[in-house]
Amino acid sequence: MRMSELAERSGVSVATIKYYLREGLLAPGRKLSERRAEYDDQHVRRLHLLRVLREAGAIPVDGLKRLVDAVEDRSGSLHQMFGPACDALGGRPAAKAASADARSLADQLVENAGWSEVRPDAPERDRLAEILEVIGSHGRVPDPDRVASYLALIDQLAALELGSVDTDQDRESMMEQMVIGQVAYGQLLLSLRRLAQEHHSARLFDD
Amino acid sequence: MRMSELAERSGVSVATIKYYLREGLLAPGRKLSERRAEYDDQHVRRLHLLRVLREAGAIPVDGLKRLVDAVEDRSGSLHQMFGPACDALGGRPAAKAASADARSLADQLVENAGWSEVRPDAPERDRLAEILEVIGSHGRVPDPDRVASYLALIDQLAALELGSVDTDQDRESMMEQMVIGQVAYGQLLLSLRRLAQEHHSARLFDD
Repeated sequence: MRMSELAERSGVSVATIKYYLREGLLAPGRKLSERRAEYDDQHVRRLHLLRVLREAGAIPVDGLKRLVDAVEDRSGSLHQMFGPACDALGGRPAAKAASADARSLADQLVENAGWSEVRPDAPERDRLAEILEVIGSHGRVPDPDRVASYLALIDQLAALELGSVDTDQDRESMMEQMVIGQVAYGQLLLSLRRLAQEHHSARLFDD
Repeated sequence: MRMSELAERSGVSVATIKYYLREGLLAPGRKLSERRAEYDDQHVRRLHLLRVLREAGAIPVDGLKRLVDAVEDRSGSLHQMFGPACDALGGRPAAKAASADARSLADQLVENAGWSEVRPDAPERDRLAEILEVIGSHGRVPDPDRVASYLALIDQLAALELGSVDTDQDRESMMEQMVIGQVAYGQLLLSLRRLAQEHHSARLFDD
């Protein structure tokens, strides 16, 4: 297909497609002549990925670049690429680093949850520590049983989400699905959770 | 306590405290003289709320104002105030409204989840529709059993989170806890979920 049709099918404007081509986020089409190129379904899929990341994740361009590099990298297993991809997705860096106590609590939670495959140097451990520090200034110590139930629920959620990835596809499609799941389903989760909390607040706190 | 001690205990700078006083986000202290006022634990608590909302939620000032109004409003039950508070927390408005199909799918999900207490005009329904639209352009139709399991897990999460609110406190503290839970625990949830996904991706996708 030509670029105009690619724009139509992907819902991404021609100007943005040209920008992604310049930035190396989208592979060039097959050249038909000096000024014409042919695009295919792989281009549509990649544009969908970029669109979801932009609309649902507000990921800056350097994050997109790291993500696309991870999606295209074939040097390791799908899992080995997913870690770096998640690193690129993990939100804003903190204004200041978390304390050693908060970091050690973060590591403890990961261990208690049984998530032994998380890289010891995964940046997400620091982000978790920062969030724990913000919450911690509130001063409440949560009940350990509740924490355990909470971790177990999140474990089930993550297993369900990743288990939904269609494995009958090529590697790049699977990676794209995993990344879209991270971002878009993260937003979906927060939205559904707000609705669920409104419901439960009625049950618990209506007079 | 004086303002300098309030700043120290809350971790919020004197300049920011003065700004919150001017904006009406923090009640004035008890006047001791023309230039001195006395602050108490309620001020520390409110500043903690504002700090969490700023650091974890990146909530703009008009959202903070609507939130503080909801926290202070005593005209209805705690639940009746929680809805408007959540509305103020619900993230950026969409660039364009979702389609009628997406909105109807959103309502269907809320109904399937059994969240009958969600207001029919809750803005979160529209936000859910927008997210579903972004995900929907991917074209995959999720398996109904997986959707049901997913909704059930989110239902349990929300019930667990709201059930952790300490009900032995005054109404304003409870409301603050609910709001902090919405925002900070939402970030916590996403961080833990990223860690859980890294773990499960090893289980599912490592060679």
